[in-house]
Amino acid sequence: MKAIRIKDHQVRQGDTVDLTSWPTSIDKVYGSKDHYRKILAAHVERLSELQQLQYAANQNAVLLIFQGMDSAGKDGAIRHVMSGVNPQGCQVFSFKHPSATELQHDFLWRTTRNLPERGRIGIFNRSYYEEVLIVRVHRDILRSENIPDRPRHDGHLWQERFRSILDLERHLHHNGTQIVKIFLHLSKEEQRKRFLDRIDQPDKNWKFSQDDIKERLYWEQYRTAYEDCLSATSTDHAPWYVVPADDKKNARLIVSQIVVDTLEALGMRYPELSADRLQELRAIREGLVAEGG
Amino acid sequence: MKAIRIKDHQVRQGDTVDLTSWPTSIDKVYGSKDHYRKILAAHVERLSELQQLQYAANQNAVLLIFQGMDSAGKDGAIRHVMSGVNPQGCQVFSFKHPSATELQHDFLWRTTRNLPERGRIGIFNRSYYEEVLIVRVHRDILRSENIPDRPRHDGHLWQERFRSILDLERHLHHNGTQIVKIFLHLSKEEQRKRFLDRIDQPDKNWKFSQDDIKERLYWEQYRTAYEDCLSATSTDHAPWYVVPADDKKNARLIVSQIVVDTLEALGMRYPELSADRLQELRAIREGLVAEGG
Repeated sequence: MKAIRIKDHQVRQGDTVDLTSWPTSIDKVYGSKDHYRKILAAHVERLSELQQLQYAANQNAVLLIFQGMDSAGKDGAIRHVMSGVNPQGCQVFSFKHPSATELQHDFLWRTTRNLPERGRIGIFNRSYYEEVLIVRVHRDILRSENIPDRPRHDGHLWQERFRSILDLERHLHHNGTQIVKIFLHLSKEEQRKRFLDRIDQPDKNWKFSQDDIKERLYWEQYRTAYEDCLSATSTDHAPWYVVPADDKKNARLIVSQIVVDTLEALGMRYPELSADRLQELRAIREGLVAEGG
Repeated sequence: MKAIRIKDHQVRQGDTVDLTSWPTSIDKVYGSKDHYRKILAAHVERLSELQQLQYAANQNAVLLIFQGMDSAGKDGAIRHVMSGVNPQGCQVFSFKHPSATELQHDFLWRTTRNLPERGRIGIFNRSYYEEVLIVRVHRDILRSENIPDRPRHDGHLWQERFRSILDLERHLHHNGTQIVKIFLHLSKEEQRKRFLDRIDQPDKNWKFSQDDIKERLYWEQYRTAYEDCLSATSTDHAPWYVVPADDKKNARLIVSQIVVDTLEALGMRYPELSADRLQELRAIREGLVAEGG
C-alpha cells in the first residue's frame, strides 16, 4: 500500500519513453475493497465540488483524453471516476470509426468539433491520438479511407502530425483549456486474462469477436507507436500520464487523483461580487422578506 | 486597361505591409461594361469547370477568406464570382456576432467547425481574422464577452493569436486545404460615397444605422490592425492578396482571377481508371447494350 503521487506517472516534456521500463502493475494504493471504495468516493466527491466551481468560474475548460489498448479499462475508469459529476458540466465522446463526412476533413476536425466549452469537462474516450496510433500501425487505413497522403509527406508524416497536435494543444492551452492525457498501461498477459473472462460473461461476450483478438498480433507495433507518441507530445501544459492498468481499482484511484489534482491546480475561485452586486442582492432580500409580511 | 497579374496583389511571406503604399484604385483591367461582363463570364465558367474537377479529384479543399471594411464589396464579390459554381461543391459562411456557445470556446473553434470538406470550396465572409481585427480595435469585446484574457497574455496576446492562426493554416495546408485570403482594400472616401448611396436606396437603407457609421471613427486603428495582420500571416502556402476595391467591377475581376489561378495551380486531374476498372466498365456496357436487344 502506498500513497498516490501523480508526478510518478507523468511523462516529463522531452523524456524519451521506453514502455518496458514503465510498470503495468505496482504496489496497491488501497488496502482492501472497502478502503478502495472509501478513497474513490472521496475523490469523486471532491471532483464534483471542483466541477461546480469550474462551472461557476467559467474560465477554464478541461479536456481528459483516455487512450489504451482494448480492455485496458478506459470505459470503466470514465464510468467510476466521473459518475459523481453533474452531467451538465461534463460530456463524454467516444471516437470509433470515423464517418464519411469526418474522413473528408483534416484529421483533427472531428475531435475539435467536440471540444469542451469553458466551465466544462470534456472526456475523449480515444481521441485524435488514434491518428498517430492505429493509423500508424495499420498504414493502409490512411489510403483506403481517402485521407490525403501525398508523396511529399511520406517521410515525415508522423512528425508532421505530432506537430499539428502540439500546435493545437498549445493553442488550446493559451485559450483556457487544460488538457490531461491518460494512457492506461496494460500488460499483454492481463489483456489475455480479461479477454478470457469476457468470453464467459453473457453481458460481454455478445460483442466479442475475432476482430478484438487480431490487434493482439500488433502488440509490439502499438508499443512503438505509443512510445513515439508519448515522447513527442507530453508537455508541461498538456502532460501524458502512464497509469499502470493491470489492477483496475488501482488505476481508477490514480486516474481520479490525477483529475482532482489537475482541477485543484487551476486555482479557480467563485466569481467575487462587486459592492454594487452585493447591494443589489441585499435589496432583493429585503423585497422578498417584506413580501412574506 | 491592363492585364491581371495576381502576383502584383500578393503579400509576400515576411513582407511588412504599409497599406498607404498599396493602392485602393488602379488602372482598370476592363475597357467597358460589356468587356467586364465578358471577362467575368469567362472566369466564372472556368471556375465552374475547375470546381467539378476538384469535386471529382477529391484531394483538396479550398478555403477563400474575405476580409475588408464595411461596404468594401465582400458580399458582391462572393455573389458575382461564385454564382456559376454548383452549390453542392461550394458553401459560404458569414461570421457575424458569435453565439453564446461559440464564445464559450477558443477563438478558432466556430470557424474550424465550418471548414470545407475535401473536394469543396468553402468561403468565409469574415473569418477568424476578426479575432485580431475588430477584437483588437475594440479591446473590450475580449472581456465583455468572457473570452479568457489572463494576465500572462496581455503583452503578447496578438502575437499569440497570430501564431495560433499560422499553426492552424500550416496544419490545414499539410492536410490538403488550400487557403487564399483576400483583403478588399477600400479608401475611406469611397466608403463615404457608398454609405451615402445606401441611405438613398430603399433596398439597402432599411438595415443602415448609426452602428455602421461608428466604425469609421476607428479607420486608422483598423488600418494598423490590418497591416500587422497581413504582415504576420501571409505565407507562401496561404497568401494574402490586397485587392484594390474602390472599383467594384475591377475588384471582382481580380478576385475571380485569383480564385481561378489558385485552383489551376493545384494541378488536379480526374481520377485515372485502372485496367481492372476499365474492364469493369466495358463489361457493364456490354450488359446494357445486350439488354437493349
